[in-house]
Amino acid sequence: MDEFALIRRYFAALTPAGAGVVLGIGDDAALLQATAGSELVVTSDTLVAGRHFPAYSSAFDVGWKSLAVNLSDLAAMGAQPRWFLLALTLPEADETWLAGFADGLASLARRHDAVLVGGDTTRGPLSITITALGEVPKGTAMRRSGAQPGDAICVTGALGDAALALQLGASADPALRARLDRPEPRIAAGLVLRDLAHAALDLSDGLLGDLQHILDASGVGAVVEAQALPASPQLLAAVPELQARAELQLTGGDDYELCICLPEKAIDAARARLDVALTRVGTIVNEPGLRVVNGEGLTITPSATAYRHFP
Amino acid sequence: MDEFALIRRYFAALTPAGAGVVLGIGDDAALLQATAGSELVVTSDTLVAGRHFPAYSSAFDVGWKSLAVNLSDLAAMGAQPRWFLLALTLPEADETWLAGFADGLASLARRHDAVLVGGDTTRGPLSITITALGEVPKGTAMRRSGAQPGDAICVTGALGDAALALQLGASADPALRARLDRPEPRIAAGLVLRDLAHAALDLSDGLLGDLQHILDASGVGAVVEAQALPASPQLLAAVPELQARAELQLTGGDDYELCICLPEKAIDAARARLDVALTRVGTIVNEPGLRVVNGEGLTITPSATAYRHFP
Repeated sequence: MDEFALIRRYFAALTPAGAGVVLGIGDDAALLQATAGSELVVTSDTLVAGRHFPAYSSAFDVGWKSLAVNLSDLAAMGAQPRWFLLALTLPEADETWLAGFADGLASLARRHDAVLVGGDTTRGPLSITITALGEVPKGTAMRRSGAQPGDAICVTGALGDAALALQLGASADPALRARLDRPEPRIAAGLVLRDLAHAALDLSDGLLGDLQHILDASGVGAVVEAQALPASPQLLAAVPELQARAELQLTGGDDYELCICLPEKAIDAARARLDVALTRVGTIVNEPGLRVVNGEGLTITPSATAYRHFP
Repeated sequence: MDEFALIRRYFAALTPAGAGVVLGIGDDAALLQATAGSELVVTSDTLVAGRHFPAYSSAFDVGWKSLAVNLSDLAAMGAQPRWFLLALTLPEADETWLAGFADGLASLARRHDAVLVGGDTTRGPLSITITALGEVPKGTAMRRSGAQPGDAICVTGALGDAALALQLGASADPALRARLDRPEPRIAAGLVLRDLAHAALDLSDGLLGDLQHILDASGVGAVVEAQALPASPQLLAAVPELQARAELQLTGGDDYELCICLPEKAIDAARARLDVALTRVGTIVNEPGLRVVNGEGLTITPSATAYRHFP
């Protein structure tokens, strides 16, 4: 058995039996039993070393984030995670690194009842592709289309921390750094919001660029209020000036918060059931385009580009 | 929109509407409707340039083979392909290469009614991960376990052509080269054999190493007859000596044929329904271990290692 066969066995041993897993790792493919009355929700995202995470990232953080960005996509659809497959390409079989990577992956997977059911391990430049599978009751998934004029635009959590952590690099404090390295996919929030939202997506490339996808898919426009963007105490302290802070929050990436368009009257009902802050940051309007305003009018034009990933 | 967003749009345009696709490419995740009474069959395989295919491979062939190795896993379970996700990592957005790659991918996908429903495109060293999803009627999937003493061991098609093509390199004729570059996943054969087989897998690393997985999973042994291994006319002409040919057929990889264990009396029924040759190459036995014999006794010991991928 070569070293990569050993790795596959290592991951197989880490895999708990899971609901709906008829046959897990170890055959040509996994056999899964989908829930009657549900639709499958599937997504696949790749993280490349030096592009999506710094080469000096801890193995734990790489494992965590590889799964988190995929679960965040499931959250944006309002899905319950079920299973995932891991395609891991590694320059060498470093057991210490693998143990850390598997620990990070498993820590997040356990939190959301996601079970590793298959994948592949190959030798090559470090890169991780995870395919995540979730479920929603038929017809209930949130989409990017469906936003309506008059809808409130809301976001979960706070925006801009990950972008600030990236700017600060090694000088970022651990709590701030964790916002970049170990994002929390908003699974529970997605499950609540799917009953209330007209449209949703997750924020990976910055609110400006990502919200534009909702506008394109829904055929509407938006006004975003810069002073309403939720900022953490760390971000407020580090970037006290509104314009600079708003630019970071609007075009910085890696937030992995949800952006939801919903009727204004549904906001209170949503907040009552959420485990995370929900902040109104703007309004869907008839006129095409995305305008960002503060008290004094236009401050940032829609031409500002979305974040283009590390570095 | 950056060049990689353009690529994503390019693949989205190539995607036909497909059965069971509630929502395809273009949202945070795809929405799929599984068939009632079925189990999902999922697998994920990565191809790395310079390791799983030569750097000089045509883009068409890389697209074809990336999907073929995954569909071959579905075939080994007896599954009908339904959907797939493509995670494509590219050093640059070369439109000519992309057009060829997409053409190869689409050519094979259309043949087997597999629909591209999502994925990711990132910049980095060339690597392709495909996750394929198929379906089987509940409880009918073939597995590696289940082989019984007395079962005939059969393989589809011919063995060793891909290994010969790899040895010959540029001097291989195009038909032989195609056996390496554009393997035919045995989907139709898998659908037939799942009613008859006790155990199955696909041959990617060579019969010796792959059959051992069935023996391990089933707790049995096997005797393989070297002179029975099916060889193409090209292989017979190029390697006329039995021992040398058998070693190539047993330890060469990339065949992507099926290896099936089934009752001897079921072979004729299988052949009557198959679109490909089915050749008996050995017998499952009680005694542990894998013995390869020809008319004169033991010729190759089980310690011969499986093929370890290009180069």
